[in-house]
Amino acid sequence: MALERLKKQLEFIVEIDKLKHIFRQNVLIKDRRNENDAEHSWHITLMAMLLKEYYVHPDIDLLKVMKMTIVHDLVEVYAGDTFCYDEEGNMDKVAREKESAKKLFGMLPEDQEQEMWSLWWEFETQQTHEAKFGACLDRLQPLILNSRTEGHTWKKPGVNKEKVLERNAVMKDYAPRLWEYVLQELNIAVEQGYLAE
Amino acid sequence: MALERLKKQLEFIVEIDKLKHIFRQNVLIKDRRNENDAEHSWHITLMAMLLKEYYVHPDIDLLKVMKMTIVHDLVEVYAGDTFCYDEEGNMDKVAREKESAKKLFGMLPEDQEQEMWSLWWEFETQQTHEAKFGACLDRLQPLILNSRTEGHTWKKPGVNKEKVLERNAVMKDYAPRLWEYVLQELNIAVEQGYLAE
Ligand SMILES: [Ca+2]
Repeated sequence: MALERLKKQLEFIVEIDKLKHIFRQNVLIKDRRNENDAEHSWHITLMAMLLKEYYVHPDIDLLKVMKMTIVHDLVEVYAGDTFCYDEEGNMDKVAREKESAKKLFGMLPEDQEQEMWSLWWEFETQQTHEAKFGACLDRLQPLILNSRTEGHTWKKPGVNKEKVLERNAVMKDYAPRLWEYVLQELNIAVEQGYLAE
Repeated sequence: MALERLKKQLEFIVEIDKLKHIFRQNVLIKDRRNENDAEHSWHITLMAMLLKEYYVHPDIDLLKVMKMTIVHDLVEVYAGDTFCYDEEGNMDKVAREKESAKKLFGMLPEDQEQEMWSLWWEFETQQTHEAKFGACLDRLQPLILNSRTEGHTWKKPGVNKEKVLERNAVMKDYAPRLWEYVLQELNIAVEQGYLAE
């Protein structure tokens, strides 16, 4: 019985190795290769430790935040990455990701399956301050990479300053000091021609 | 003043993007490309959430564990990855990594520099149960990948069952159920010719 439990957990750990092959639209600073979801999740989880003080309620539960940021992209193992500015792809994103969550989280023992669902859904729907802070980090990290790679993703068709502002809006109310940084970087990007007005 | 603080934190966040280019000896399951440190750190931090119950003291502080596993390889940004079975490379590993820590953690505001040092050093010297559990995960994860890639790293010169057992020994006393799994996988590997007796 206990053996069956560990076996399930290990098979899940093997399965999520695939997240290292799910590539995002943004690129790494050094050699401009596309970043994958595992790298992105690592980066924002570490950022949670360093930037918590800028959230409007700095007394949020950091463990909850780190659990959410570490698992938030797992469903992309089957559903793939949906570019945040792809309007068509975002129409059925939730349905595709729920299917994926069912299949992936279903590999785990029931209590852990429940925990994964609840962390992922809390993050996805931004119900709590912990989820909202996680969303700030999930937006801020690619913005930092874009600002250091001549706006790699910002040059894609259909992206402009208004859309990037909208994408990052969660910081306006919930992390005003980070929002100031966002505004500053976007102004520089427009000035330098990396982002359409 | 506050501006200076955020600037330091953001420069650190940019600098550690480099960890995604520090490659380890073991490979990913799907396409056998080498894994990098950011991916490895993501994987073991998620494993901490799932496998805590197998540690001899399952009431350890999970937040502390996750903080340590997410930062434990940062010093390799400058020091590089040292193969665990490379005896020569391991002779000056600590000195090289301390130099690297000084340079990298020194980019942060003093309070966060202190926190990074103390998390890294606690992990490195395995002073606490949280660090020992982190070490279990740090050993178990590449073992899982090796067991699914015909013992990729185990076939390297100088590696044999005795050395792999020694490398994983922390699980023997501190996570006996995981240790059983280790023994089982190593026996299979020897049987199938992926690991020298
Ligand atoms: Ca995503």
